[in-house]
Amino acid sequence: MRTRFDRQLEQLNVELIRMGALCEEAISIVAKSLLDSDLTYLPHALDLDDQIDDKEREIEALCMKILLQQQPVASDLRVVSSALKMISDMERIGDQARDIAEMLEYVVQYKFESRVHIGDMARASIKMVTDSIDSFVRKDYDAAVAVIASDDVVDTLFQKVKDELTAAVAAQPENGEIFLDLLMIAKYFERIGDHATNIAEWVCYSLTGQHV
Amino acid sequence: MRTRFDRQLEQLNVELIRMGALCEEAISIVAKSLLDSDLTYLPHALDLDDQIDDKEREIEALCMKILLQQQPVASDLRVVSSALKMISDMERIGDQARDIAEMLEYVVQYKFESRVHIGDMARASIKMVTDSIDSFVRKDYDAAVAVIASDDVVDTLFQKVKDELTAAVAAQPENGEIFLDLLMIAKYFERIGDHATNIAEWVCYSLTGQHV
Repeated sequence: MRTRFDRQLEQLNVELIRMGALCEEAISIVAKSLLDSDLTYLPHALDLDDQIDDKEREIEALCMKILLQQQPVASDLRVVSSALKMISDMERIGDQARDIAEMLEYVVQYKFESRVHIGDMARASIKMVTDSIDSFVRKDYDAAVAVIASDDVVDTLFQKVKDELTAAVAAQPENGEIFLDLLMIAKYFERIGDHATNIAEWVCYSLTGQHV
Repeated sequence: MRTRFDRQLEQLNVELIRMGALCEEAISIVAKSLLDSDLTYLPHALDLDDQIDDKEREIEALCMKILLQQQPVASDLRVVSSALKMISDMERIGDQARDIAEMLEYVVQYKFESRVHIGDMARASIKMVTDSIDSFVRKDYDAAVAVIASDDVVDTLFQKVKDELTAAVAAQPENGEIFLDLLMIAKYFERIGDHATNIAEWVCYSLTGQHV
């Protein structure tokens, strides 16, 4: 027979998966908008950020209820305290998606050519978010460790994008503002990768009790 | 007579103040290093980031202990849950200081002229961090609201720095990389202001139970 505690932990799991799905959707929309120079779905990305903020508060309230009512110990306590940390990172991912969305209206006017690496960055960071949440759902330590390792890929891509933009600035200084904006967008994707790394680190901690 | 609970809450207060002081010191060092083009104290900033990370875990463990042992309700529960959120923001401030520190070695080689606004940004964001922690210590709602309002100042300064750097890129495209780095440093200071705003919002929540 399932206890009330089991049901609460399962609800926590479901809500975390939902919040993760909202994050994935938000960054996928802004990445696609950037790469296709198409702003059609951008308002939905802003709406998703609001939903992510609401979900954070909902999950936080649930965690507090579990802590106070159930006084969990050992691995259950680690799950709840990791959840409290993970939602902070997910909320920041929503913020970064919003930050990118707010810059896009101006940026997409310019048909920049060297969008290969920024596209690779976007895809790599979305994959990190998906995989980190997936590792949590499946309680898969190795998958979480793989996410942490893949942060280097995003960091390397960021350096490539920065080098391209530095060259672009030198060649077309009159478009300097666009290139500065693109640098910031690339930086946001790099940050999203950092947050996914944090989420994966919390997955490892919740499974083993050891900080990676 | 003071209860064990009172002592634990007081210890939480003291530890939060210590963590805040570490954050202030870290960003003050990187700001001064940038403005004086002097890297002497930079290793200490990196050391402070490690201390900030340790302090976060220490405070987190203390919060969990209080939640499980004391099962606080109402305003005491809000204090503990706000503390858990505030330490995430303080930890990010430490990260931003480290990010700036890691860029400085290259950036300070170039004696850029238009450092007035980036200096103003650094000072304004340090003040926001100091004031947000101060509002927590003094349980001062109005001071916390003032911190939230002052985020606009930092955002406006960021726009000024960005405009200056855009002009600088156009005038000296051969120094493009330096200007891109300076933009990222300015962005880090803007983020520090955002984290101070978050801390102030948690102070308001812990005092009133209402999200600002």
